[in-house]
Amino acid sequence: MTFKAIVDADTLSDAIEPVSALVDECKVNLLEDGIEIRAVDAANVGMVDVSLDAGAFESYDADGGLIGIDLDRFEDVLSMAESGDLVHLFLNEETRKLEIAIDGLEYTLACIDPESVRREPEIPDLDLPATFILEGKALGRAITAADLVGDHIAVIATADSELVFEAEGDTDSVDVTLTKSDLIGVVQTPAEDAESLFSLDYLQDMERPIAADADVSLLVGDEFPAKLRYSRADGAVKVVNMLAPRISSE
Amino acid sequence: MTFKAIVDADTLSDAIEPVSALVDECKVNLLEDGIEIRAVDAANVGMVDVSLDAGAFESYDADGGLIGIDLDRFEDVLSMAESGDLVHLFLNEETRKLEIAIDGLEYTLACIDPESVRREPEIPDLDLPATFILEGKALGRAITAADLVGDHIAVIATADSELVFEAEGDTDSVDVTLTKSDLIGVVQTPAEDAESLFSLDYLQDMERPIAADADVSLLVGDEFPAKLRYSRADGAVKVVNMLAPRISSE
Amino acid sequence: MTFKAIVDADTLSDAIEPVSALVDECKVNLLEDGIEIRAVDAANVGMVDVSLDAGAFESYDADGGLIGIDLDRFEDVLSMAESGDLVHLFLNEETRKLEIAIDGLEYTLACIDPESVRREPEIPDLDLPATFILEGKALGRAITAADLVGDHIAVIATADSELVFEAEGDTDSVDVTLTKSDLIGVVQTPAEDAESLFSLDYLQDMERPIAADADVSLLVGDEFPAKLRYSRADGAVKVVNMLAPRISSE
Repeated sequence: MTFKAIVDADTLSDAIEPVSALVDECKVNLLEDGIEIRAVDAANVGMVDVSLDAGAFESYDADGGLIGIDLDRFEDVLSMAESGDLVHLFLNEETRKLEIAIDGLEYTLACIDPESVRREPEIPDLDLPATFILEGKALGRAITAADLVGDHIAVIATADSELVFEAEGDTDSVDVTLTKSDLIGVVQTPAEDAESLFSLDYLQDMERPIAADADVSLLVGDEFPAKLRYSRADGAVKVVNMLAPRISSE
Repeated sequence: MTFKAIVDADTLSDAIEPVSALVDECKVNLLEDGIEIRAVDAANVGMVDVSLDAGAFESYDADGGLIGIDLDRFEDVLSMAESGDLVHLFLNEETRKLEIAIDGLEYTLACIDPESVRREPEIPDLDLPATFILEGKALGRAITAADLVGDHIAVIATADSELVFEAEGDTDSVDVTLTKSDLIGVVQTPAEDAESLFSLDYLQDMERPIAADADVSLLVGDEFPAKLRYSRADGAVKVVNMLAPRISSE
Repeated sequence: MTFKAIVDADTLSDAIEPVSALVDECKVNLLEDGIEIRAVDAANVGMVDVSLDAGAFESYDADGGLIGIDLDRFEDVLSMAESGDLVHLFLNEETRKLEIAIDGLEYTLACIDPESVRREPEIPDLDLPATFILEGKALGRAITAADLVGDHIAVIATADSELVFEAEGDTDSVDVTLTKSDLIGVVQTPAEDAESLFSLDYLQDMERPIAADADVSLLVGDEFPAKLRYSRADGAVKVVNMLAPRISSE
């Protein structure tokens, strides 16, 4: 197993954050054409699939190996980089440790046995009837508003091309409606209104790494999982999230 | 009971903050010429009277109703507004709920039965012998200094037109003296030195919403309550605080 | 005992911070030519010697007295100063209190009986074989990196004029190497590699007051104490730290 790469610290952080938002440790696929990470949380509710193309590295050499990484520690090391710093990564096969060098600093990170890390999920290719494109900021606002009253958020795609977020508390309720003019785009509108209910905690975790000005594709259905798709690091990092629905009590 | 109004979010927040600094819930008088809130803390020590003129609203329609509001929740909703956003308020008489709309967000706030909210205080028209006008910043500094040593602050108006704040701790003491040149104005000087002792906690709560550059009128007497008067939102919000004195142990 | 002085608040804070980083109270020598403070922590591991020249004061009058100061309280008072404010200090011999005046604020600080304060250390004149000059920022980075993995930091001066910081955790390790080009200067290189192990906590406390762009002289030996020397307030404050080594377990 060979792995040796040099990459901008911010780009690498951009790839790691959507994963660490959901899980503490993960398997990292060191593919020939780049890095891919797929992970699911312990309750099997939130999934993430992140890829970072080899082309985004200063130099990249890998042959399809698989390593397990403690994400807290890895992010601690990346936090030592200043903006613009390059991160040199080298997998020492003998010691099973990842050697990380950043401007005179050398950190030796013990890898985790990939066998001990939760199985990688397969994110299914769902046929979701509605696809909207919205700003990261608009998604964040809807989540913050829902959090004022409850633990869940309903996402409703209307046949009129509106995207509605709703939350109910014991006494109060809130909804945020994005009409066509509030959205960056409406790719697909459902034939009739489609509504699914989600745990707010998970959606908050997924939303946290999304930049305010990012274009986020939100794919939803009726009592169905939702998908989020966006990119980071000027497109070098591609992220797909899938979130399982709560069964609505209604 | 009719209430329907549109107002700048910052202006509304400016009116609410001096109240929420003292109490968690309050009665709101929806008068024909604007909103008025009077509240007193549980210990009957600190009072506040805030008015927001109808003229400061984009549109305003009310007929003298009275509602009870949970201030934490109301401020949470206002926190969703960005600077410059308008807040649309509509009291739904059937549901007894306040409908609050801010740029695509609709929050339905359950009102509290006004009967269950502590009685509104009458802020008495005291004949206080000394009135000084000082900057919010100067008041804040005196309070911060007093807080270094003790739990109480003595406010002394001297016959020489000086305003002195004093605090005594177990071993240390501090005083802050504002002479005529440190003050914005001296409206009334007492015939002889007048001193009253106040709980620092209450005065800190009252001072927190005051802008550093606000003109604050401080009215004091000898072992008497003090009054603070200032305005916010370019004069649209008028605030009066009254603080009962501690009986000096001397 | 006479002490009366006027000094810029920032300059005085610069002199106090390296002391308060290690101890809660200290003796202050009010010498004719300036202030000197020497202190050692309770475990006798970290020492500090700070001097502030009389020339850095606006006015200074002292005759060699010694007072005990509670540093938390003294720093609280200094925090009331704004940038550029002058601090007036006057020791009232009758009351044994230090009168501190800052722009209309007068704080009376009870001194501590110097007899009750831990004995002042003598910082020995060690013959250390290696002296490097590095930026405060570089020292801070090495400490932060070591803190990612462990509680101790090894400082190694190589015969090749390199300064190396190393830390070992249970599974991970980190080292930061400063070569000649990373250093501001190499004053003295040891004949052979010299290594000493230090408690990270103490070194963190000592590093905290050091400005990112300060020139710091680091003097080290082989299983020997280390010294740090730097200045603050444009040279008016001179600081020497000494840190006892941990006995290496190897």
